[in-house]
Amino acid sequence: MTLSQPTDPPLGDRPRAEAEPVPPGEEPGPVLAHSVRLVDDGVLILDRRVFPFERRWAHCRTAEEVAVAIKDMVTQSSGPYFAALWAMVLAARAARGLDAAGAHATLHGAGRALVASRPTNDALGKAVALVSAEVAAARPDPRHPAAPANFPTGDALVEAAARGARAGDVEYRSRSRALGEHTAELLPDGATVLTHCWADLYLTETVAAIGRRGHTVRFVCTETRPYLQGARLTAETLAEMGVDVTLITDGMGAAVLSAGSVDALVTAADRVTMDGHVVNKVGTLGLAVAARAFDVPFYAQVQTPDLGAPGAADVPIEYRDGDEVLHTLGRRTASHRVRGHYPAFDVTPPRFVTRVVTDRGALDPGLLADYHRDGEDTSS
Amino acid sequence: MTLSQPTDPPLGDRPRAEAEPVPPGEEPGPVLAHSVRLVDDGVLILDRRVFPFERRWAHCRTAEEVAVAIKDMVTQSSGPYFAALWAMVLAARAARGLDAAGAHATLHGAGRALVASRPTNDALGKAVALVSAEVAAARPDPRHPAAPANFPTGDALVEAAARGARAGDVEYRSRSRALGEHTAELLPDGATVLTHCWADLYLTETVAAIGRRGHTVRFVCTETRPYLQGARLTAETLAEMGVDVTLITDGMGAAVLSAGSVDALVTAADRVTMDGHVVNKVGTLGLAVAARAFDVPFYAQVQTPDLGAPGAADVPIEYRDGDEVLHTLGRRTASHRVRGHYPAFDVTPPRFVTRVVTDRGALDPGLLADYHRDGEDTSS
Repeated sequence: MTLSQPTDPPLGDRPRAEAEPVPPGEEPGPVLAHSVRLVDDGVLILDRRVFPFERRWAHCRTAEEVAVAIKDMVTQSSGPYFAALWAMVLAARAARGLDAAGAHATLHGAGRALVASRPTNDALGKAVALVSAEVAAARPDPRHPAAPANFPTGDALVEAAARGARAGDVEYRSRSRALGEHTAELLPDGATVLTHCWADLYLTETVAAIGRRGHTVRFVCTETRPYLQGARLTAETLAEMGVDVTLITDGMGAAVLSAGSVDALVTAADRVTMDGHVVNKVGTLGLAVAARAFDVPFYAQVQTPDLGAPGAADVPIEYRDGDEVLHTLGRRTASHRVRGHYPAFDVTPPRFVTRVVTDRGALDPGLLADYHRDGEDTSS
Repeated sequence: MTLSQPTDPPLGDRPRAEAEPVPPGEEPGPVLAHSVRLVDDGVLILDRRVFPFERRWAHCRTAEEVAVAIKDMVTQSSGPYFAALWAMVLAARAARGLDAAGAHATLHGAGRALVASRPTNDALGKAVALVSAEVAAARPDPRHPAAPANFPTGDALVEAAARGARAGDVEYRSRSRALGEHTAELLPDGATVLTHCWADLYLTETVAAIGRRGHTVRFVCTETRPYLQGARLTAETLAEMGVDVTLITDGMGAAVLSAGSVDALVTAADRVTMDGHVVNKVGTLGLAVAARAFDVPFYAQVQTPDLGAPGAADVPIEYRDGDEVLHTLGRRTASHRVRGHYPAFDVTPPRFVTRVVTDRGALDPGLLADYHRDGEDTSS
């Protein structure tokens, strides 16, 4: 992985441009909505650790380099999903000259490395599975799907992987847009919304949907230590979209909620279990508990409740290096005599969740099985 | 005010040493417990904005310079109380050559400036009142206490102010010690305690009392943005006292409380109203609400419930410059396109408070009037 490409890559290289050309006159959206891009010799990932102070792109030439970039937090939130999609294309390119067994091993190895890069984020697994399914569908003999020898090779392999990645890109954006619409339905015109961390496309699509309704919104966002995603990514992007935005520290959420000036707490969720537990960036739980105490609704956004996780015990919580708590943007900000503790996520029980907003509508956290019922739309 | 004295002033200059000599063999305690010192030409205040990375002392030559130092957060928590005590001695020294009316005006002006330096902290008013009462007691004609012409002058004035300041210093330390004892009584041996911000002598005396009981304690402390009092002052001082201490960000409190590993939330309070509202550093409310949600007791420490504040509406909440939220130790850490919001304190309603621990014992937040009942000891 090479860091520090000084300027943004040309928009023509955007994966989205290949898959879904931007209609004339439509804005391409904020920078962070297109911050993972496939290019001829790799994947470019905007380095969210330094954005917006610097625009530095990590140039990952292999799927393994993408996995390292994800692990190192070069990108996060929706970023790893897109990075994993395009990393699988890099793996297919790397395997172009191999035989079927070699290609199979290469793609499976890449998928494993990507999934392992962040244990709590299940979007990685989805991205890998999506590309893998498209590749599997291109197998030479459809009667033997599981055999490594029956695996596409050469250009067929690369084209199948690219097709899967493009489809995953389009699908994620389209479902985020639907989720944004359903969130906007819950907010009164002129709402003040408190958010935490960086909800990525869920946030930008919510703002876009509010705009399409002709409504206005104001945001209060937490800075989200230790990485300051709120102070940097959320604040910058909301301002870029023309939204009024105020920053608070992570400890101020309850004060703002108790003051009666917030209409809703809205955050993304990395996962929502089938029994309604919301797993998201650490700090969400405290805000949700305070929102409930002061009668403010909490809307947790996730495209799909996780069928693979019946309850909270089924979601591994990632503990990151405690040293990250002792530093701010690389500088030591704590006593040298203390150690840090860094659970990256927390788990909000359903009693503190008002609605789980999915691409199919806003659901009661106790009724999430409705989402998966024959794919019917269960919008409230 | 002059900054940057490179090393600590000699301990012999400590106000405490004049008033209450340290017994042989007893440790003088952590650095921050003696971080405001009267010297011949002013008051030295350890600059808590840069501690422990730098040991810089602000040298304030007048009471007005002390007020500016307090307003600028050179010191906070218990620091302003001690600074105000000794600032009144500086005012008396400055008035030494004036007539009674001039001396009266000088001391009253200094008192007003000190009280106005932080609007939520009522310890400033107490410190000023204490010294003023001692000075008033030294008036030449005890039959006319209120007349400016009947005000002590010269050495009598300075001696009275110094007597008042010394008494205030001794009393505050002694009552903090009692409060620490009453807090220690509530904690099991081997307790893990979550704390927020920097509780100053309430914290150090609690730790000392736990030690005197032969018990151990572990602390988890929040970093307390934007000034990082927890990461710097609390973490450093607990480690200095030999206590096991772990740092978390302000957003992690609820995660730690929900994990079942914390026995009690213990914080200081800047004020407690007579109806049991706890006014303390912003962030306390969120932790208290989470503690209640996960059945962890919250003990709020204050020497005395505030008879002057029947309810929360009687306490002015200080709003500080929102730019402070956008910076960390002087460096910009937020998008340049966002504004900050900085309520310095929040108000925790009594339903989230388990006990208010005073120098007379731990009280139910609904029964605080018991504290003031004829000065009887109402320890639980």
